[in-house]
Amino acid sequence: MKEAVVGIDLGGTCTKFGLVTQGGNLLAQDSIPTNSDLSYEAFFEQLYNKIDFLKNGLDENIDLKGIGIGAPTGNYFLGTIENASNLNWLGEVPVTEVLESYSNLPAVLTNDANASAIGEMLYGAAKGVENFISITMGTGLGCGIVTNGKLVLGNNGHAGEIGHSTVYYGGRSCGCGREGCLETYVSATGLLRTIRELLETTKIESELRKNTSHFTAKKVTHAALQNDSLALEAFEYTGKILGLKLADIVAYMDPEVIILSGGLAKAGTLILEPAKKYMEEHMLDVYKNKVEIISSGLTEENAAILGAAAFSWNELENKKRL
Amino acid sequence: MKEAVVGIDLGGTCTKFGLVTQGGNLLAQDSIPTNSDLSYEAFFEQLYNKIDFLKNGLDENIDLKGIGIGAPTGNYFLGTIENASNLNWLGEVPVTEVLESYSNLPAVLTNDANASAIGEMLYGAAKGVENFISITMGTGLGCGIVTNGKLVLGNNGHAGEIGHSTVYYGGRSCGCGREGCLETYVSATGLLRTIRELLETTKIESELRKNTSHFTAKKVTHAALQNDSLALEAFEYTGKILGLKLADIVAYMDPEVIILSGGLAKAGTLILEPAKKYMEEHMLDVYKNKVEIISSGLTEENAAILGAAAFSWNELENKKRL
Repeated sequence: MKEAVVGIDLGGTCTKFGLVTQGGNLLAQDSIPTNSDLSYEAFFEQLYNKIDFLKNGLDENIDLKGIGIGAPTGNYFLGTIENASNLNWLGEVPVTEVLESYSNLPAVLTNDANASAIGEMLYGAAKGVENFISITMGTGLGCGIVTNGKLVLGNNGHAGEIGHSTVYYGGRSCGCGREGCLETYVSATGLLRTIRELLETTKIESELRKNTSHFTAKKVTHAALQNDSLALEAFEYTGKILGLKLADIVAYMDPEVIILSGGLAKAGTLILEPAKKYMEEHMLDVYKNKVEIISSGLTEENAAILGAAAFSWNELENKKRL
Repeated sequence: MKEAVVGIDLGGTCTKFGLVTQGGNLLAQDSIPTNSDLSYEAFFEQLYNKIDFLKNGLDENIDLKGIGIGAPTGNYFLGTIENASNLNWLGEVPVTEVLESYSNLPAVLTNDANASAIGEMLYGAAKGVENFISITMGTGLGCGIVTNGKLVLGNNGHAGEIGHSTVYYGGRSCGCGREGCLETYVSATGLLRTIRELLETTKIESELRKNTSHFTAKKVTHAALQNDSLALEAFEYTGKILGLKLADIVAYMDPEVIILSGGLAKAGTLILEPAKKYMEEHMLDVYKNKVEIISSGLTEENAAILGAAAFSWNELENKKRL
């Protein structure tokens, strides 16, 4: 009989889930469309039935110990998601309560960025690291902060929202209603805004001028790797702003490691190099050359499932210790 | 036999020390000039003799359990102070090693801002609070961050340097060699720089125009309390910048409470009101009306001694738990 937990990555279009051992082995995985036209009760019942089916399909017997869920706006303390902009359910959805009632297993919920940080701590690039920052750059910018070997949740479970710290007062307008937020510059969408600005305000030659209607961060990355001047300029600008803000974060938290993951991190040195350069230039002397910026240690397609599972294992361990 | 620890506040001109019970009773205190023309060995020997004298002068027998020291640049992990700008000792001074050799007691060192935070946690405005930020606004701006009930020291003991996070890129030049640091705006010296700028760039009438050579933050506070327009404007500006930066800190840490102490905090609502107003305006909705900004819960003259003593008690408790 093998022990495992369920890791669930609840996304806007698709919900991925898998069975994961404490050592980080992903025994099996599957996904279903996130049908938020269903009532949340019906959706989570369907999800739990699929998990049960997955478990029963394995050759060996599995002893499930818990469930970990990573979801946008997921609140650890309340076990709820609330008005998530990419889901149709209105108000508070009591995720852990509903899943516990179907499964009879302890369920824990957090936002995807926190789950990702714990994933890096248990299975990824931050094994054995007590003080680190994990930054996920996708459509937005999410962040999980670990100090003294523990995730910083804060008083209401909303710590780590560095994507909504301000880079420039009166800067780019953000979906949150404020201006100049870090994620309006440093994210896949932020990169595309920078490209559009550069197309309008400069005469830099670029492949990207040929078809300005269908940009993606992937296309911009491809162009930059082909030495397209405008795409390179956009990455330099994005990395610079990330680096400036990382210098602040280092002053606050004095981390050993900063881990970058998500779509934009796939650009590799295109973003890592300027980020590192401007971070070092803008830090106090005491921090210089002491903070590593590295890429995620998790294979991207499973990272969110592993993160959610790690969060569950971490919680089970913390409870044992008490 | 009563148990106590020694709390030492090592300042540039004066070193204060006292004997403090676990409950926060200051049994006795004294001070000596910080004579850094002496070798550090000679100075700390003199200091320890004075502590011994203080202890022996008490009516009851005291069982000393430890020593806590708060000092600028004090490094918890190394037990050293290093090139402190207000002390003559060059290079690393092994403070805890020297004090332990004289006293045979376990000694812990940290910077004054961290000691202050633990003082608030044990004896002050943050009793029972698990997530808070303590900000000391004096000549500079120091900060101690507590999450999950523990001080954030970071990887090298340099966490909490929010005074050197950036408000405006290319802003005011800072003693650290960088530009736009928070402490160049929000500190006693920052306030005076603002006053000088306002005197030069505006025609706002003010008492302060009469004698522009000898300003102090105290005089500016006095003028503001008399409704002097220029002094009020300077406080509004200082509080605004503090508030903007606090909005960032809240996004990072989601604290329950922010505690302000030090000379500038004495201005009370003059600084608290604009700080609160701009913080609330610039925060994500999830944080609004959930974070308290309050003044220190420690009487100022003893705060540093109590903080250093609290740090020692906190360390002794942590060791017991292991």
